Amino acid sequence: MQNRRDFLKTAALAALGLGTGLHRAEAIPLFNINAKAGITPRMRLRFFPYELKLRHVFTVATYSRSTTPDVQVEIEYDGIIGYGEASMPPYLQKELGTLESVMAFLKQVQDKIGDFADPFKLEDILACIDGMSEGNAAAKAAVDIALHDLAGKLLQAPWHKIWGLDKDKAPSTTYTIGMDTPDVVRRKTEECAGRFNILKVKLGGKDDRQMIDTIRSVTSLPIAVDANQGWTDRQQALDEICWLKEQGIVMVEQPMPKERLDDIAWITQHSPLPIFADESIQRLKDVVGLKGAFTGINIKLMKCTGMREAWKMLTLARALDMQVMIGCMTETSCAISAAAQLSPAVDFADLDGSLLIANDRFRGMEVVNGKITLPERPGIGIVKAEEGI
Amino acid sequence: MQNRRDFLKTAALAALGLGTGLHRAEAIPLFNINAKAGITPRMRLRFFPYELKLRHVFTVATYSRSTTPDVQVEIEYDGIIGYGEASMPPYLQKELGTLESVMAFLKQVQDKIGDFADPFKLEDILACIDGMSEGNAAAKAAVDIALHDLAGKLLQAPWHKIWGLDKDKAPSTTYTIGMDTPDVVRRKTEECAGRFNILKVKLGGKDDRQMIDTIRSVTSLPIAVDANQGWTDRQQALDEICWLKEQGIVMVEQPMPKERLDDIAWITQHSPLPIFADESIQRLKDVVGLKGAFTGINIKLMKCTGMREAWKMLTLARALDMQVMIGCMTETSCAISAAAQLSPAVDFADLDGSLLIANDRFRGMEVVNGKITLPERPGIGIVKAEEGI
Repeated sequence: MQNRRDFLKTAALAALGLGTGLHRAEAIPLFNINAKAGITPRMRLRFFPYELKLRHVFTVATYSRSTTPDVQVEIEYDGIIGYGEASMPPYLQKELGTLESVMAFLKQVQDKIGDFADPFKLEDILACIDGMSEGNAAAKAAVDIALHDLAGKLLQAPWHKIWGLDKDKAPSTTYTIGMDTPDVVRRKTEECAGRFNILKVKLGGKDDRQMIDTIRSVTSLPIAVDANQGWTDRQQALDEICWLKEQGIVMVEQPMPKERLDDIAWITQHSPLPIFADESIQRLKDVVGLKGAFTGINIKLMKCTGMREAWKMLTLARALDMQVMIGCMTETSCAISAAAQLSPAVDFADLDGSLLIANDRFRGMEVVNGKITLPERPGIGIVKAEEGI
Repeated sequence: MQNRRDFLKTAALAALGLGTGLHRAEAIPLFNINAKAGITPRMRLRFFPYELKLRHVFTVATYSRSTTPDVQVEIEYDGIIGYGEASMPPYLQKELGTLESVMAFLKQVQDKIGDFADPFKLEDILACIDGMSEGNAAAKAAVDIALHDLAGKLLQAPWHKIWGLDKDKAPSTTYTIGMDTPDVVRRKTEECAGRFNILKVKLGGKDDRQMIDTIRSVTSLPIAVDANQGWTDRQQALDEICWLKEQGIVMVEQPMPKERLDDIAWITQHSPLPIFADESIQRLKDVVGLKGAFTGINIKLMKCTGMREAWKMLTLARALDMQVMIGCMTETSCAISAAAQLSPAVDFADLDGSLLIANDRFRGMEVVNGKITLPERPGIGIVKAEEGI
């Protein structure tokens, strides 16, 4: 009975092989050669650095850069590979880890992961990995994403389906227009106004109103604003938010520094726009303390250690009557597609990270007419870029 | 490709048929005759009253009874059947519904459920059903359980696995010793002391200490106490809890009436034992307000509308640093096995409901050496009783 069951199940998996994220080369071990030979399959982890090349130089107030350090992770079990990714933008390395710390952490996980006999026991595996060190959230997220991809492939189902969500409800993603001269901003806005349904701008400097005016000279699309803790006076911040509301802005992230929680709560109380936590939130433990201070939270896989904790944060925020947005770093379609699995359950999605890089290794979530479009493929729904759909 | 995929997948399902909750008679439609014929499969719901016969007359302070009204539910989709159940003990019919209101509600769901094309979209389906009327929590739970059983069978996985839990971590279940004369209590305790690892007693009357003394004359097993809102003075309740602690009691449920939340919070603050909410909690929306007032919450599927909300309540309680227990009504192994899927993640489990009835229709979760033992079968893990394992 068991043999016939295994044969049929793995034959079904093999039949699903093409175009499902299970590669042709991986199809052979799907016939459970390990189990047939009486060998218990074990998880194995591989990882390698993969520098992300940005399509455009990324400039914020303090510096510019054209690359993002990134590590790609693969967890193989019984012939199936789950993919994961850690992205560590330099300005967040305190929370996410550095290339060196992430590589060192993944080496530790590599030595440990074979001890876990069953890849489905995510609660225990991820709790153990989380306990292996402080910080290194991006490395933990990479392992979490790879394990989710693996488990979803073993279940032959994408995570939006396992979570009971309707992929048709995935929202449009925002697309970020970087700060630049009015001419450049105007040109960039013209380029993307037809491809997206909602734009995002980072404000908090002295040219804020000029930036909005420039975009508004091109398009009336809704705009999300990330103030990046940039405002220092709460009344001034509120005045700015009221002006933004008149310009068709639909939400504001992190108006003031995270230490100024009382001032932020005052702004949220008086604001005509929803106010979202970004720098103020990292993990599940932070959510309860933000109730009342913010309208909603921005969940990012690299900060919160991955899909399982993100799903818990979403559940908790909803129970607290808070709104939710899902965000990202510059990432390949691996981490972006993982985050997109949750997107049918959020109010705003900011998942343009893979659109900003020139060397995406994967195809997965696609932006179609501005809307996040989730594939039916199992796990996180990705295939290697060169393999097409 | 699609045809071959479907054939292999359904052949694998058929191969799994015996002993997995997929009945022999159900195996034929598994070959996707609907899909082959170009017909989109639809969900269909059936239900019928099924009076539960109690093994022993159940007596509480105000009345006795020997049966519990119950409705059995089946949701069929593409040849696979998901099972659910609504149990409505008379003293809880205000929250759970009556036999009549549950039957009427299920008739409404029966008319509606064919509109949902995809049984995996649990978030939307269950939100819609929840919105169809106030109350009727047991009927909603029956539909939720049947949909989870169906989705789990379609994924070929039990829910504890889909949720990422380790079934070996399922706790021992408590077993309730009813209030009775010392002789009867002594005999009942002797009968079950060797089969269980933790007992439960309902206190809150004048014979509380005699009850505990009688049990302690037979066994030193740990005991959970349900005070059923029975104590009226907080200092007296605390004194009683301190005495209970000396007698090896390990937790106390609902020491005072639910309206007395401030007094309960005072007890929890001073208590040497964890204090759990029972009458004080019904659904997800109630959890946040109990933080600080109770150590933990007792989640019951019939009260909280089912597995999906129960899982959210568990997530929320953990995020609030609260303990969790999973409880039940008198129920068949259907609803008990559904609740047991969550049990690896709880602190206490009180899942003796199916042991108390004489006409269980199903086999599922089993109590082995006092411990909850989850089957590997998909969905909620049950088979009809007459079909054996």
